[in-house]
Amino acid sequence: MEERKIKIGITQGDVNGVGYEIILKTFADPTMLEICTPVVYGSPKVAAYHRKALDLPTNFSIVHSASEAGHGRLNVVNCSDEEIKVEFGKADPEVGKAALAALERATTEYREGQIDAIVTAPINKRVVHSDETAFPGQTEFIEERLGDGRKSLMILIKDDLRVALATTHIPVSEIAPAITKELITGKIATFGQCLKQDFGIDSPRIAVLALNPHAGDDGLLGTEERDIIAPAIIEMRKKGLICYGPYAADDFMGSGNYTHFDGILAMYHDQGMIPFKTLAMEDGVIFTAGLPVTRTSPTRGAAYDIAGKGVADEASFRQAIYVAIDVACNRRREKAAHANPLRKQYYEKRDDSDKLKLDAVDDE
Amino acid sequence: MEERKIKIGITQGDVNGVGYEIILKTFADPTMLEICTPVVYGSPKVAAYHRKALDLPTNFSIVHSASEAGHGRLNVVNCSDEEIKVEFGKADPEVGKAALAALERATTEYREGQIDAIVTAPINKRVVHSDETAFPGQTEFIEERLGDGRKSLMILIKDDLRVALATTHIPVSEIAPAITKELITGKIATFGQCLKQDFGIDSPRIAVLALNPHAGDDGLLGTEERDIIAPAIIEMRKKGLICYGPYAADDFMGSGNYTHFDGILAMYHDQGMIPFKTLAMEDGVIFTAGLPVTRTSPTRGAAYDIAGKGVADEASFRQAIYVAIDVACNRRREKAAHANPLRKQYYEKRDDSDKLKLDAVDDE
Repeated sequence: MEERKIKIGITQGDVNGVGYEIILKTFADPTMLEICTPVVYGSPKVAAYHRKALDLPTNFSIVHSASEAGHGRLNVVNCSDEEIKVEFGKADPEVGKAALAALERATTEYREGQIDAIVTAPINKRVVHSDETAFPGQTEFIEERLGDGRKSLMILIKDDLRVALATTHIPVSEIAPAITKELITGKIATFGQCLKQDFGIDSPRIAVLALNPHAGDDGLLGTEERDIIAPAIIEMRKKGLICYGPYAADDFMGSGNYTHFDGILAMYHDQGMIPFKTLAMEDGVIFTAGLPVTRTSPTRGAAYDIAGKGVADEASFRQAIYVAIDVACNRRREKAAHANPLRKQYYEKRDDSDKLKLDAVDDE
Repeated sequence: MEERKIKIGITQGDVNGVGYEIILKTFADPTMLEICTPVVYGSPKVAAYHRKALDLPTNFSIVHSASEAGHGRLNVVNCSDEEIKVEFGKADPEVGKAALAALERATTEYREGQIDAIVTAPINKRVVHSDETAFPGQTEFIEERLGDGRKSLMILIKDDLRVALATTHIPVSEIAPAITKELITGKIATFGQCLKQDFGIDSPRIAVLALNPHAGDDGLLGTEERDIIAPAIIEMRKKGLICYGPYAADDFMGSGNYTHFDGILAMYHDQGMIPFKTLAMEDGVIFTAGLPVTRTSPTRGAAYDIAGKGVADEASFRQAIYVAIDVACNRRREKAAHANPLRKQYYEKRDDSDKLKLDAVDDE
């Protein structure tokens, strides 16, 4: 099957951070341009400034929109008429506005069908937050614009290690009240669907972590395992999903048991993030699952401390591109496979008003 | 300085688990008998049963108490008149009673000055818990018997990685209310004192982890960092301790920053245990700091699933013996160094009622 290359929309993120550095370093490698068509939403001027300041070899073409994007090269779309002054490491609200404009343009072009996936370079949340617009984060922005009312599931990915978070950016004091049976069954369902559709795993095995230490120790150290998490797992198992737990998080990670599962559902941010970053800090990817749009981002931040020094490692960003390509391809194939189903009558034997009586044998 | 060997009291733990296996494997190595004098509190009959069942070469001598313990050999004290039937992997309340009797005897002999430190083999908490005695755990038992009213600080140790827990076995819903300024300052003080006295680190550097994700993100994700943890750190710094933070736990562990500190104070069980076990599952040690008694234990459990199979790894237990010896030696040296201080008048120049006027020069 001849397929056109996946078009990846890349938002520039915080231009005073390491965003352009990791983008330009990633696409300095010509093989990266063979596997996808990258379109950066940002500013050609700023890209050129970073290219020169960091003495990077990557060339790029200026285009008006992703529809003009040429294959085999890096394309840059200008998203803002205002001049931006790059000052490495400086938290600047103007830079926050530019980051938001890039995100705005990328979501618009995605909706128009001009790109297949979005990869976001890191922003400084506080810079964008200080803007007049209420902006909790890039994920929430994309969820609102392209989510069709669905809620996303945050999944941390490194090779075959996939850690999803049942709750994300909430204080520790709010974790326990947030853990409900509806939440857990919903997250398991989304996770299972994502592992099938986005990662091509036919019968994914999901491990669910406990909330409390020692998995609650039979109620001595908390009752959520017994009253909420275990019943949620049983309910989902009855629906045909292969899920186990709740497992005490420390022993589960320490014993290496996690290698036996296609996905791990953690109950809260640090429970999933701590072991993930301990194992995979350098090249971890965040995948925003459960939405119609394919979106990934690197686990690394805008890193003001090393901005402009040329020492930022692009591995995490390159992995984010790989995952976006894989997921977009898997979704495209899944869609193609279901686009022209055989008409029911040729294989369905039970009676049905839509059935042609081609087969006279009645096996009821 | 000629020093007598450290006498280590070892409690047998759950005899249906891997306790005797890891004890006998550890002391099969003659060099282990050169660096300490081990005294097992338990049952010679049961020890012999395990030795035979697992075909282990380790010999031992039966003694009536640690005072009779011979050097260069493994000593076993019988702690119970009742017969115990070993059934590998079985949760048996009789076995729980025997574990408790061993612990009782070890703490008594420690109080009598017959041993220098206690290393506990793993128990099955539920077996001991089902007994008529209220028994939350070995740590609490030792704290009550030998703590002189002090509260212990649990520290996880692997080489130079030392992770202390501000709160331990409580449900997640109770963590945030438990975090108070008094708690944090107290734990930092105990940790600093322990690193100096027990590990011989003159000016220990302590990192304090945040409670909430992203260290609370300036109050967006929780206020404990701003209102409690940061002020506690500042207060302790004013008292001369070198402590920093609060650090977002995931980035702190993922970036490898933890290697720059002598100790890390985590806010709750899983926050410290997850990265520790992820990095050091096989040979981690738990040290019960802050008490007059030196007590360590392996991070591994009674492991019913592999009991009697001869496949249990003794590395964690051997490390627990090493740490107990190190700490007991450091404490002994610290005590010796302060046993006969110079009398004040020979080095103190400021006026003082206790001062002999040997020096006529007045430099005020």
